[in-house]
Amino acid sequence: MAQKPSIPKGTRDFSQAEMARRNYIFDTIRGVFRTFGYQQIETPAMENLSTLLGKYGDEGDKLLFRILNSGDAFSGIDFDKPLTPQVAEKGLRYDLTVPFARFVVQHQSEISFPFKRFQIQPVWRADRPQKGRYREFYQCDVDVIGSRSQLNELELVQMVERVFEALDVRVLVKINNRKVLTGLAEICGFPDKVVDITVAIDKMEKIGLDAVKDELLARGLTADAVAALEPVLGMQGTTAEKIAFLRGIFDGKSEEGLLGVAELEELFSLIAAAGVAVPVELDLSLARGLNYYTGAIFEVKALDYAIGSICGGGRYDNLTGIFGLPGMSGVGISFGADRIYDVLTGLDKFPASLASSTQILFANMDEEGLHYVLPVAAALRKEGIAVEIYPDSSKLRKQFEYAERRQIPFLSINGSEEIAAGEVNVKNLSSGEQRRFPISDISGIASWLTQ
Amino acid sequence: MAQKPSIPKGTRDFSQAEMARRNYIFDTIRGVFRTFGYQQIETPAMENLSTLLGKYGDEGDKLLFRILNSGDAFSGIDFDKPLTPQVAEKGLRYDLTVPFARFVVQHQSEISFPFKRFQIQPVWRADRPQKGRYREFYQCDVDVIGSRSQLNELELVQMVERVFEALDVRVLVKINNRKVLTGLAEICGFPDKVVDITVAIDKMEKIGLDAVKDELLARGLTADAVAALEPVLGMQGTTAEKIAFLRGIFDGKSEEGLLGVAELEELFSLIAAAGVAVPVELDLSLARGLNYYTGAIFEVKALDYAIGSICGGGRYDNLTGIFGLPGMSGVGISFGADRIYDVLTGLDKFPASLASSTQILFANMDEEGLHYVLPVAAALRKEGIAVEIYPDSSKLRKQFEYAERRQIPFLSINGSEEIAAGEVNVKNLSSGEQRRFPISDISGIASWLTQ
Repeated sequence: MAQKPSIPKGTRDFSQAEMARRNYIFDTIRGVFRTFGYQQIETPAMENLSTLLGKYGDEGDKLLFRILNSGDAFSGIDFDKPLTPQVAEKGLRYDLTVPFARFVVQHQSEISFPFKRFQIQPVWRADRPQKGRYREFYQCDVDVIGSRSQLNELELVQMVERVFEALDVRVLVKINNRKVLTGLAEICGFPDKVVDITVAIDKMEKIGLDAVKDELLARGLTADAVAALEPVLGMQGTTAEKIAFLRGIFDGKSEEGLLGVAELEELFSLIAAAGVAVPVELDLSLARGLNYYTGAIFEVKALDYAIGSICGGGRYDNLTGIFGLPGMSGVGISFGADRIYDVLTGLDKFPASLASSTQILFANMDEEGLHYVLPVAAALRKEGIAVEIYPDSSKLRKQFEYAERRQIPFLSINGSEEIAAGEVNVKNLSSGEQRRFPISDISGIASWLTQ
Repeated sequence: MAQKPSIPKGTRDFSQAEMARRNYIFDTIRGVFRTFGYQQIETPAMENLSTLLGKYGDEGDKLLFRILNSGDAFSGIDFDKPLTPQVAEKGLRYDLTVPFARFVVQHQSEISFPFKRFQIQPVWRADRPQKGRYREFYQCDVDVIGSRSQLNELELVQMVERVFEALDVRVLVKINNRKVLTGLAEICGFPDKVVDITVAIDKMEKIGLDAVKDELLARGLTADAVAALEPVLGMQGTTAEKIAFLRGIFDGKSEEGLLGVAELEELFSLIAAAGVAVPVELDLSLARGLNYYTGAIFEVKALDYAIGSICGGGRYDNLTGIFGLPGMSGVGISFGADRIYDVLTGLDKFPASLASSTQILFANMDEEGLHYVLPVAAALRKEGIAVEIYPDSSKLRKQFEYAERRQIPFLSINGSEEIAAGEVNVKNLSSGEQRRFPISDISGIASWLTQ
């Protein structure tokens, strides 16, 4: 009996049309990364579980796909002990950050720092599949490691600007700084409440000052602490004004807060000097990655399409410490390919040219006609033009329908008349215009096809 | 204690330099595939084991990497039954052919046939790692399904020609035909000895006619059978002469053999009509994939570098039958990326330009200097030029060494003098030539950097 074919839940096939659109996104991102001097690396799909375990919290450990040891995985194991660790030593990559950290430590003697790398590869998570969440998906990470300069943060903002400019999507870049959040927790006397304070700030717009104050009290802050935070909660003005205001708040009270303010000030000054045109906003409510980021925190939102963040990242001061290389500061962002795909689909921003991959179809009339067009097709391909010849001398109607279904814009039908005249007949299928070229005029044909 | 980081045996990290070279190969191949109207698809890394098992023989089944079921894989299983099938329902892709067959059947209603696809993705095999054999490696497959026309075989030969022309590697294309081999086995009365006969033909050059005849006898053929084959073993002449000779041998004796001869004749006639310049040779000893190919068989050898075949494939008449879609004929070839990499390395054929990814480094003097060059860097990047600014205002010597190590060809150092003059100073690090441009002359700078 034939099997009914299917793929594991949470995974996807990508059709030609989907791949053309995905490649458009990846090629755009890759092209921008390269103009900033970032270079691509790849790491294996499988990592040793000792590399992966304990890096993503207990929940993350559970979501790792484990590979059964090859050979007989069960021979010689102790059935009285936990089985999984005995039969599986490898797992599939869960993200690109931990393999990158492992890569940097393993190859540190070959790397020139600062090391600017990007990586575009799939990752796997045994999450419950649901709309927009997959068990296999691509990540698209760009990071620099080995430099504490805020110029790196600026370049990330500039790369975001260039990518979405190229994709014709209007975005807003939100920036926060972990040291500022730490400073806020310090000045109110609750250094362990960073997350609570950030979440409360995030609710200001929705629920208002009084409700946020109640929530902070409910989360264990004292009335004095809430009073110390109140000016920040109601903070207004331009980014420069907010930064000046925060400096005043921290002055003499939080070294860490002042460091964060200095970083923000330098970054916004670089953003202005570089002429960044994309809107960039200081947003103290940005709570992404609070347990590993140590400086800048980034998030990018599409302005014309409602979806979560399409890009995010931040600075981490000790990425490679877990693998024995302390003191390496890095900063990076990750582009969410699936969400960007959804945004471009929703806003109808994929170029129409992606739909047709082949520029011209030569009809297949008979053996003589086929031999006549073969050198023409070969010469056009040498010019970089995508050319197909219909493989069988089927009815013309069928060949024509193939051109239509494949959205091939030009059709060339050559019968005995064209052959006798030494000409090639080319028809633009959308305008209906037909032209005849001498068979030797490859550049004439090529320029009509590509104009 | 920090872990000493490592990766699973048989897997590889690819550095920036290696990725640049690998991308050069993949981009070249992809570009050629596209000019022939082939479109990319991707399938998931994980397939259901029901899709994979039984497709690669017993040995292949053993080499599949199996994924432990997520959640608690061992809860509720019967320890008296074989454990592996109970705890692992998914496996990693072993090749791209079976997933392609599964894809075609699963999506048959959305596909317009003939379906021309290519696929470039990693595959995984639990082979014993050794020099040149890895547990994770990329395959690069191009196939057309749903057409029996020999034009498809021609296009595969043309794609091989174009790829290796672009990579500047001289190759020889060898062609065989399974139906001809079947015909030979038929005319000597041993239809089940196809493999033995092919292997014997392969040894002609090495051991000579008499030893081959002895071997055929030892493999169970009769003296009459060997006598019937003898004219083929000693066959000489041009491809056209060999084809005519085979037609004579099969005439009235093997329908299948005559079909094979007709296919070869048509293919070689198309190769001539298309003006294929790469050497193409009929080679009856080509024994690749004898248990699944049903028509043409291809193999490509590098002429100037000793390594196994760098590309191979053939026609299979019932690829999708195992998944319930009979009668679909397909033909395809696979480019061996790792071997092609070794050939290009061995022949020193990678373009020198791959070594440098960044075109110009702006030195970082101080805050004023940095702000001065930021808009220049941004404008050059908009022109598509890869630009770096050294992230810290370190000693110039250190910045210069970074440019050298990264093989960045141009360095721009701008001090108070350049800033006062409103100019940008650019130095070609290999020739030593320096030029000054007005800061607004972005196109002037760009054209010097890219000439």
